[in-house]
Amino acid sequence: MKLVTYRASVEAAARLGVVVDDLVVDVEALAASQGEDLPDTMLGLIDAGRPGLETLRDCLEQAEGRFPAGSATALANVRLLAPIPRPRKNIFGIGLNYVEHVAESAKSLDTSKDLPKQPVVFSKPPTAVIGPGDAIEHNRKMTQQLDWEVELAVIIGTTARRVRKQDALGHVFGYSVMVDVSARDNRRAGQWIFSKGQDTYAPFGPCIVTADEIPDPQVLALWLTVNGVEKQRSNTRHMLFKVDDLIADISTGITLEPGDIIASGTPEGVGAGRNPQEWMWPGDVVVACVEGIGSLRHPIVDATPE
Amino acid sequence: MKLVTYRASVEAAARLGVVVDDLVVDVEALAASQGEDLPDTMLGLIDAGRPGLETLRDCLEQAEGRFPAGSATALANVRLLAPIPRPRKNIFGIGLNYVEHVAESAKSLDTSKDLPKQPVVFSKPPTAVIGPGDAIEHNRKMTQQLDWEVELAVIIGTTARRVRKQDALGHVFGYSVMVDVSARDNRRAGQWIFSKGQDTYAPFGPCIVTADEIPDPQVLALWLTVNGVEKQRSNTRHMLFKVDDLIADISTGITLEPGDIIASGTPEGVGAGRNPQEWMWPGDVVVACVEGIGSLRHPIVDATPE
Repeated sequence: MKLVTYRASVEAAARLGVVVDDLVVDVEALAASQGEDLPDTMLGLIDAGRPGLETLRDCLEQAEGRFPAGSATALANVRLLAPIPRPRKNIFGIGLNYVEHVAESAKSLDTSKDLPKQPVVFSKPPTAVIGPGDAIEHNRKMTQQLDWEVELAVIIGTTARRVRKQDALGHVFGYSVMVDVSARDNRRAGQWIFSKGQDTYAPFGPCIVTADEIPDPQVLALWLTVNGVEKQRSNTRHMLFKVDDLIADISTGITLEPGDIIASGTPEGVGAGRNPQEWMWPGDVVVACVEGIGSLRHPIVDATPE
Repeated sequence: MKLVTYRASVEAAARLGVVVDDLVVDVEALAASQGEDLPDTMLGLIDAGRPGLETLRDCLEQAEGRFPAGSATALANVRLLAPIPRPRKNIFGIGLNYVEHVAESAKSLDTSKDLPKQPVVFSKPPTAVIGPGDAIEHNRKMTQQLDWEVELAVIIGTTARRVRKQDALGHVFGYSVMVDVSARDNRRAGQWIFSKGQDTYAPFGPCIVTADEIPDPQVLALWLTVNGVEKQRSNTRHMLFKVDDLIADISTGITLEPGDIIASGTPEGVGAGRNPQEWMWPGDVVVACVEGIGSLRHPIVDATPE
């Protein structure tokens, strides 16, 4: 299933929806019309676990494409928000997780040319999250090196503490797309949270595809364009630490919880790695896509304080 | 005021309390007895803003030391929890923020000997938080270098985006103590979230002292002992970036929100900086104290998986 958080109109409250062809169907309303009880938020559905998803699947089957009045809206007419508009903790980011990107980073940034022996983890605060179409803010007083990174985002479904690699994918709720926006000139003593964690630096969406529809997350093409020009194109098969490695590894020390988000790293082709280097500026438009999930499109806007 | 989150008995629910002499008084119950409405959680009170604190102060004054039946418990008989048991995002940690600690870190870790030009920010997930007395878990398979760091914790009261230094302290709700536990051998490509963000690595408490009682946060002695032996002793006056600097700086790019926590860095005397180096092991007890706030006492326990 493709799950979204959306507003049916500008003034409407944010709702949890499931995409059926070219419609978005209100999950809570659909369930209620069949005497079932389902949450009206993505985190609520994640917390409802496998039974929640099964109920939703049953409801969709029962409906046979006929949805209660007012519960279905044309996808083209809704405003999509980030699937989890407000994560419950910082997003886990993974650095240097595609081989070619390790090489370009070592040439242009201050990172090692050796492949990392363990996942390189950092974080982005919930305040960085924006939804599809929202503007990425550019503050000229802060950065002249605003960079792009397309990534597969992994949404955790069930608590994972010290899980084995072979059990790790069983803890995944679904997958989404995230752009790990980075102000390369804002790294501090090597720590990345400030350079990658600023407001609007985590475009997220447009949907979460449930894990059952992506049995193997390591075969997905992903790409990114700036102003229509392709800058990144790769496949998740080139990830150094795969999704199951990441979950197993992080959970050795940090308990992963339902609703946690892991941005699994970006392939080569970032602005810092180009010759000459390229950066995003107000007026630019970045589009990021992961195969089978969807695409994000974001304008860069000037947000320099006076 | 000294505010705590506590259980009046083992089975009791967590409640918000205010310390009056040797009593903990239930904030919601106290207010209700006077026809007022106050929250029953610390985050609720923080969200209630200045009016909430004023109402609480008025209620305490009105009570004149006589509290409604069942609403006051001897401090000695309650179980204190972390003041905010579950922060809404990762804790902001500040590295290398005391001059002498920068020097010892450069000698023993992989950090620069130069003073940082801007605050070095990292994060610890909410899952790392433990309350007074809770055990710090030691996993021998993960680390042989578990280190201590006593820190002044700053709790944000009101949203801070691009605030000026002179306005920064006006955004503080109060102050507390945090131990920034670190597995020095778990740093990864320089990123600190994994080495500092593991479960139980953020002892926090025992209370929050409201900002009105600490008009100058830069005059507080802080110290730490391991097994009764003093390891750290300094004063917040030696902070390189003061609390107002930190808030002004972070808020240039990352909006700070009510309930956010900043662990403001540790002075010299950490285990990594000693000759020979010292680490914490199961059976050890660490005590951390900040003047005017209180102390935390935590045993280290073995939590190595089989």
